[in-house]
Amino acid sequence: MDIRNMLNLVKNGEMDIEAALKLLKDLPYEELGFAKLDHHRGLRSGFGETVFCQGKPDPYLMEIYQKLYERDGEVFGTRASKEQFELIKPIVPGVTYDPISKILKAERPGKKKKGWVSVCTGGTADIPVAEEAAQTAEYFGCYVDRIYDVGVAGIHRLLAQRERFEKANCIVAVAGMEGALGTVIAGLADCPVIAVPTSVGYGASFHGLSALLTMLNSCANGITVVNIDNGYGAGYSATQINRLAEREYE
Amino acid sequence: MDIRNMLNLVKNGEMDIEAALKLLKDLPYEELGFAKLDHHRGLRSGFGETVFCQGKPDPYLMEIYQKLYERDGEVFGTRASKEQFELIKPIVPGVTYDPISKILKAERPGKKKKGWVSVCTGGTADIPVAEEAAQTAEYFGCYVDRIYDVGVAGIHRLLAQRERFEKANCIVAVAGMEGALGTVIAGLADCPVIAVPTSVGYGASFHGLSALLTMLNSCANGITVVNIDNGYGAGYSATQINRLAEREYE
Amino acid sequence: MDIRNMLNLVKNGEMDIEAALKLLKDLPYEELGFAKLDHHRGLRSGFGETVFCQGKPDPYLMEIYQKLYERDGEVFGTRASKEQFELIKPIVPGVTYDPISKILKAERPGKKKKGWVSVCTGGTADIPVAEEAAQTAEYFGCYVDRIYDVGVAGIHRLLAQRERFEKANCIVAVAGMEGALGTVIAGLADCPVIAVPTSVGYGASFHGLSALLTMLNSCANGITVVNIDNGYGAGYSATQINRLAEREYE
Amino acid sequence: MDIRNMLNLVKNGEMDIEAALKLLKDLPYEELGFAKLDHHRGLRSGFGETVFCQGKPDPYLMEIYQKLYERDGEVFGTRASKEQFELIKPIVPGVTYDPISKILKAERPGKKKKGWVSVCTGGTADIPVAEEAAQTAEYFGCYVDRIYDVGVAGIHRLLAQRERFEKANCIVAVAGMEGALGTVIAGLADCPVIAVPTSVGYGASFHGLSALLTMLNSCANGITVVNIDNGYGAGYSATQINRLAEREYE
Amino acid sequence: MDIRNMLNLVKNGEMDIEAALKLLKDLPYEELGFAKLDHHRGLRSGFGETVFCQGKPDPYLMEIYQKLYERDGEVFGTRASKEQFELIKPIVPGVTYDPISKILKAERPGKKKKGWVSVCTGGTADIPVAEEAAQTAEYFGCYVDRIYDVGVAGIHRLLAQRERFEKANCIVAVAGMEGALGTVIAGLADCPVIAVPTSVGYGASFHGLSALLTMLNSCANGITVVNIDNGYGAGYSATQINRLAEREYE
Amino acid sequence: MDIRNMLNLVKNGEMDIEAALKLLKDLPYEELGFAKLDHHRGLRSGFGETVFCQGKPDPYLMEIYQKLYERDGEVFGTRASKEQFELIKPIVPGVTYDPISKILKAERPGKKKKGWVSVCTGGTADIPVAEEAAQTAEYFGCYVDRIYDVGVAGIHRLLAQRERFEKANCIVAVAGMEGALGTVIAGLADCPVIAVPTSVGYGASFHGLSALLTMLNSCANGITVVNIDNGYGAGYSATQINRLAEREYE
Amino acid sequence: MDIRNMLNLVKNGEMDIEAALKLLKDLPYEELGFAKLDHHRGLRSGFGETVFCQGKPDPYLMEIYQKLYERDGEVFGTRASKEQFELIKPIVPGVTYDPISKILKAERPGKKKKGWVSVCTGGTADIPVAEEAAQTAEYFGCYVDRIYDVGVAGIHRLLAQRERFEKANCIVAVAGMEGALGTVIAGLADCPVIAVPTSVGYGASFHGLSALLTMLNSCANGITVVNIDNGYGAGYSATQINRLAEREYE
Amino acid sequence: MDIRNMLNLVKNGEMDIEAALKLLKDLPYEELGFAKLDHHRGLRSGFGETVFCQGKPDPYLMEIYQKLYERDGEVFGTRASKEQFELIKPIVPGVTYDPISKILKAERPGKKKKGWVSVCTGGTADIPVAEEAAQTAEYFGCYVDRIYDVGVAGIHRLLAQRERFEKANCIVAVAGMEGALGTVIAGLADCPVIAVPTSVGYGASFHGLSALLTMLNSCANGITVVNIDNGYGAGYSATQINRLAEREYE
Repeated sequence: MDIRNMLNLVKNGEMDIEAALKLLKDLPYEELGFAKLDHHRGLRSGFGETVFCQGKPDPYLMEIYQKLYERDGEVFGTRASKEQFELIKPIVPGVTYDPISKILKAERPGKKKKGWVSVCTGGTADIPVAEEAAQTAEYFGCYVDRIYDVGVAGIHRLLAQRERFEKANCIVAVAGMEGALGTVIAGLADCPVIAVPTSVGYGASFHGLSALLTMLNSCANGITVVNIDNGYGAGYSATQINRLAEREYE
Repeated sequence: MDIRNMLNLVKNGEMDIEAALKLLKDLPYEELGFAKLDHHRGLRSGFGETVFCQGKPDPYLMEIYQKLYERDGEVFGTRASKEQFELIKPIVPGVTYDPISKILKAERPGKKKKGWVSVCTGGTADIPVAEEAAQTAEYFGCYVDRIYDVGVAGIHRLLAQRERFEKANCIVAVAGMEGALGTVIAGLADCPVIAVPTSVGYGASFHGLSALLTMLNSCANGITVVNIDNGYGAGYSATQINRLAEREYE
Repeated sequence: MDIRNMLNLVKNGEMDIEAALKLLKDLPYEELGFAKLDHHRGLRSGFGETVFCQGKPDPYLMEIYQKLYERDGEVFGTRASKEQFELIKPIVPGVTYDPISKILKAERPGKKKKGWVSVCTGGTADIPVAEEAAQTAEYFGCYVDRIYDVGVAGIHRLLAQRERFEKANCIVAVAGMEGALGTVIAGLADCPVIAVPTSVGYGASFHGLSALLTMLNSCANGITVVNIDNGYGAGYSATQINRLAEREYE
Repeated sequence: MDIRNMLNLVKNGEMDIEAALKLLKDLPYEELGFAKLDHHRGLRSGFGETVFCQGKPDPYLMEIYQKLYERDGEVFGTRASKEQFELIKPIVPGVTYDPISKILKAERPGKKKKGWVSVCTGGTADIPVAEEAAQTAEYFGCYVDRIYDVGVAGIHRLLAQRERFEKANCIVAVAGMEGALGTVIAGLADCPVIAVPTSVGYGASFHGLSALLTMLNSCANGITVVNIDNGYGAGYSATQINRLAEREYE
Repeated sequence: MDIRNMLNLVKNGEMDIEAALKLLKDLPYEELGFAKLDHHRGLRSGFGETVFCQGKPDPYLMEIYQKLYERDGEVFGTRASKEQFELIKPIVPGVTYDPISKILKAERPGKKKKGWVSVCTGGTADIPVAEEAAQTAEYFGCYVDRIYDVGVAGIHRLLAQRERFEKANCIVAVAGMEGALGTVIAGLADCPVIAVPTSVGYGASFHGLSALLTMLNSCANGITVVNIDNGYGAGYSATQINRLAEREYE
Repeated sequence: MDIRNMLNLVKNGEMDIEAALKLLKDLPYEELGFAKLDHHRGLRSGFGETVFCQGKPDPYLMEIYQKLYERDGEVFGTRASKEQFELIKPIVPGVTYDPISKILKAERPGKKKKGWVSVCTGGTADIPVAEEAAQTAEYFGCYVDRIYDVGVAGIHRLLAQRERFEKANCIVAVAGMEGALGTVIAGLADCPVIAVPTSVGYGASFHGLSALLTMLNSCANGITVVNIDNGYGAGYSATQINRLAEREYE
Repeated sequence: MDIRNMLNLVKNGEMDIEAALKLLKDLPYEELGFAKLDHHRGLRSGFGETVFCQGKPDPYLMEIYQKLYERDGEVFGTRASKEQFELIKPIVPGVTYDPISKILKAERPGKKKKGWVSVCTGGTADIPVAEEAAQTAEYFGCYVDRIYDVGVAGIHRLLAQRERFEKANCIVAVAGMEGALGTVIAGLADCPVIAVPTSVGYGASFHGLSALLTMLNSCANGITVVNIDNGYGAGYSATQINRLAEREYE
Repeated sequence: MDIRNMLNLVKNGEMDIEAALKLLKDLPYEELGFAKLDHHRGLRSGFGETVFCQGKPDPYLMEIYQKLYERDGEVFGTRASKEQFELIKPIVPGVTYDPISKILKAERPGKKKKGWVSVCTGGTADIPVAEEAAQTAEYFGCYVDRIYDVGVAGIHRLLAQRERFEKANCIVAVAGMEGALGTVIAGLADCPVIAVPTSVGYGASFHGLSALLTMLNSCANGITVVNIDNGYGAGYSATQINRLAEREYE
């Protein structure tokens, strides 16, 4: 019932004031039709639902993978273990597992990509987080340029790759320990840089806190940060930016 | 003198090569003794240099504003005090100061804007940081939609503004205390969200740490974070994204 | 105008539906430009809106006090300064200021109270926070029993007051330094205890962190915690509990 | 034997005074050598003693369960392992173990419940903590309404459940990661909200610290907080509030 | 060589000035005769050397136990594992191991004790740390009164033991979680209280940090603190105090 | 009424069971006669009440000083300001103020001292905290040996004072920055060492946290710690130890 | 192409201005010839590349060891496990593994050493980190003097070794727990001291944080610090200093 | 009088042995009552004593400056205020004060320098700390090359200065905010790098903690770290290294 109708009923004496008051108390939300919006949202945004596998009890995980695969014909999960792969393999056709990125997915064939996201790492130990970002961006439709092991302690390695940044709509900079990669890249590139601190390091790295603080305090312009080891989040945001940049070709 | 002009002079024989070499040698940055103004930066990124005024000694600040204004015909500084405004007023024509955002700038007339950035706050106390973001985005060429005081403790205030998010290419979510604004907005909108924690709060907010952690740990997709109170950084990154989204019209 | 009156006017034909629609559209919150007063809130929760005065720019504060007083005939603000009192005095009749609790309020005469909330402190330095809690509870309709300076280092002082806990529906325990007061009280009383850590202390109290952690780690049952120095929050929650306990008499 | 029965025996001459004195002397707590069971507690608070099983050596745990079961005909323990269940099964008739909540209990049949407590979670990973809260509240006599997986990143899921909050005397909001659930619920509901941060998350969630700070800094009214993962504490305090609210029916 | 002799040699021309300068540079320390002091110190202080077993490589541990036993006829080690006990058993006659306190010792028969140290705990989980303190004090010659499971959440349990404090020359208060035990005891007793925070707890106890801060911020007089779980340190200092108090009988 | 009498009344039907139950609920505490205990305690312990002046409102402070002086003929306060001295001067005869230690006291003439406490500092900046400790110990009856500026970076300065430690019953070691003084002294002396971290330092000293952690983690035996800058607490505990050591002469 | 040539082309009309602008944008880096510098750097600095083995995937580690051994005839890795040793043994002739230092290396015979580095530890538990430092310095050409177990709690042990410091060009001070070793050594020696905090300790040592803060806040002159447990970094920097000191003999 | 002169007097019979003994007894440090000037230090280390002025009471500071100037003919102090300069000016001839570095010194004319130390900063706000380092190194005999405002966000500024690193025996890298300067420099240079974090920054820089952690976690070789803002410490250690490198010319 909409408010105008309700007011008419009150005017006509067909609804008493207490009932109207009760209705009004609920209205600010019910008017918004969230359920319907919800049905449309996945469709409109072009992002399916992602499964965070780590710690999900087995029966929950199986049901979620099955339901999503049935509905969408594909399913994408992060932080999966090898054991979870064994669990899902029998029930989702064509599911694959990458032990580096820990991504467990079944993907519809023939999906198209457009636009470039660069994913860089400071060292080889940051690659698992970088792959989570890269494969997320690929799954959601970006071309990905991987530029690994270009940490700032040997700045020439990074400078030698500078030209490759030019085609990117967004650069994901993944680094642990002192985490300065994002700052140097943001100083070299013109597009948005998303910095991902990793828990790589020891001692006073405090499981990624050092790299996180470095990135938040960057003296460079054009850099934003996600949670420690959150490759997925960086890949998702990079995809949003890439889509905006490429939408003129749609 | 800008580089294109110089090359034209060389081409036309109006400047000899040694003079051009000398100029180019100086171009990457101009040495002020205490600071190095980055002349190359504008060329590289399309963004002029910004002055972080806070704590700059008076003579330094005056020289930097003068030099940048001479070169570019405009100058933009953040975290300026009223005293600094008094200092710069006599030497930079048309300089203005906004005591809320603490932005001290002289802007070339007739600059064009395109594309929308939304800037939201949880409360009224977050407005200074939000204005730093908003005015930064405006200076660099975005239209800005201000949506203030829509904190999640009264969720209907935020939901009522939902439609305004649709025109935005990027949303800046500014909040202190528990800092949940970014998460709820990212759940409602499809464009990238840049969350800015503020130092608003007391006790266990630890000068913005609480809001910062909230934003980094957001369970929503499509949210990245900048340093506490860093409205400028958010406005800059939002502008980069807005430009990418609007480049087809160029 | 309140909603019930408006509905009566509609019912009686004294207001047409379009005018009512327009009013309702405005009702959920009133836009002041910089802030959104939540008119719906009182309806929803039975608590009027409270003003957090600290840091509010003068014109904002004046407008908010004026609007709320006009609408409700009373207004209640916390963390106000003496200067803010001077500001509000000319524009809100009967406004009073308590320099201990820093509460700045104008209160409708003849309000009724029911049920008891006890407010205890460990030391005399905790009294300002305790008074914020106590006066909040009184404003919203509770009788308050103040039991001050009963810290656990002299446990007999607390034990001597044990009987007074029996009439309370909720006890607010305010303490800084080591903050053990809440635990001992929760071990003695049967009603819910709300613990408020204060920033009273020095050195390794880290501005209230020590007391906060103590209270969160309490080995007693029936104790919950609010932010450091958050007397208002404790008073509010205590009032909610007191109302629930006393609702049979309504 | 309980105290009332003993007094009846004294009154009826079936127990002499010296025997009664001896019993009373033992009553305040029973010395097990390593632990002191608090027999007085039930009398004082109306809540029996709860066993925190985690880390208790096997012989201690067995003796405590046996003693409490003998005295009360029921026994309730939290944070038990499957191994501890195997240990207690032979010695406490009807003991059951729930691997989700890790509650190990034997409950007297025919206990009555009254009044509603709602228990909500942000995600599925928060359910173990929520179940500890829910089953605690049920054991001590509340009806519990479980509203799970309504995190604020998809606000419509939470809004759709809004009506269910109305019957609750107290709402327990359980969430990890950014922990904003409590704030949004407190903005929607009128009853007290007890927020439970969980250690769910990774990176800068710092094992629940992020959610804890969020909840302590909530900008909503009517919210108090317990320790990270402390479902039991929340369930206990919610029960106290529920009893106060329902006492008129006694 | 002493300084007077050296100066005589210089005076007589038997030592040149450079050699004298070199000698003088070394003198401030060599004069102190530390080696000799060292030989006497163990004898004088009455405390043998203690072995911190945890993490010691097997051959080192075996050699240390053997050497100390040969020299002193007894040996005392803390934080030993069961495996280390198996290692030492064949080589040190009469060595015993207590799995609760993790003390691994061989003790000379017939040692005398004098004076009382009380060791109290908040809960049963604190007993291992308390036993480390108690057995340390006993080994070094104190009578120990164990008062366990008297946490402040049930204050009557502690008050019932109050008289036992009177005979103590020093009280060791061992508690985790909120750690308030030391404060309450120091308020009841007149002798020095040494508080030992334990890592017992979860969530925001941060492995004993909460209890440590509580104890450091105690509002009681006469309380000092040792490191988290440092039962040995508390037992050692308590013994020093007990010896001072009892020295008149020597 | 004692329990036996009550039981007799029940037996004789002169008290009904509900009244007996109510009485029993109160008994565990009322039996203890705390108020009386309180009257005796100051007398027995020999320590008068100390006033923590910092932050006390003026009228409270004046009343407390006056009351204590009237009762005891002397009064002792710490952390007083020069303004507070001016306030107290007219109302307490013979009151004196030391701007270094910030102690504000009036002391009865002719008090006797016995036994030695040593107070050492690492640097000159630690002297205010050391003086608070020293003057506290002197007020309560100890002779104090001041050994200042003997920090471990110039170890010979400390070693040269070694002999002076021998007469002490307790040593108070006051140090900021790296705070290693206590460890070295505890390695040289046989009596208990109380370490006081100070907030002297900058940068990563974090207002005394560095020194506090150093002292808690000392590898020396016989060292306990008090809160940052808590000279009073150290002086009080040192006095307790000194009295125990000297009691044979009483 | 160098800039002068480019300018000539522009002057002669052989390159248009847009192409020149693009080239200029790249020049600041390409001119530097980093790749070449890189080829020369290893040669010039005299330090080969070091492998941080911990966490390297097996195939990566094998390829790196093989490549470096082929190129240099030797290879040096830190933080290797016994399993990694088994992996490398078949493919790198003469590779050795030290389970204390966890160094996995193959070293060219006949390398020369010069100059002394001293490596000291506070306790025996610090030896693994010290050996990483010592063996790093030896591999890169220093003589190393090991002075272990000279912690400051028994200062005479350290003083007795004082003369051995005189031959050192650099002293590495390795200590956990309270970490005061570096300060005392820097007070005794004239050469640079590099302090290495270790994670040895428990409770409030917070995995080396305590020792790290102690060392950073040292009141001694001439002390610098590396990351917790970073023996390699200390050994490397000590070698750099030793080489500078000994270069006159080259 | 210095020790060599005294020995000459003894040798020549101009001073008797008792007088020499008395002098030597005083030499190790001169007792000022509140402070102990370390006369031996100069002999031992070749560095005179430095005064940390901040927080020193006026009379203490005056006496220390006077004594040191009398003995050495020069005096060097750090962290001095302008007020302290006014205080010292009348009593120490030729004393000068630099408001940037806050160094207050009187220096003997004609001192010689040798060898180069480079001092670099990330931004202009780091210059005060850099100047403290640079002027310390100059005072103690180094040539200093200042390379300011070469932060890594504009990496070309730093690369352009690369050649200047080659003459340095030690590089001091001073940076706040994200603090990555040291890492990039250590990757470019072969000599030891001493990194100085500064408290420059805001929000999550936590007063220098961010830069400190970055520097400790550097992935570059050859970098050690000093306390936040500790320019003096870096200058001192750099001088030690420079002296070692240049000693062949002595």
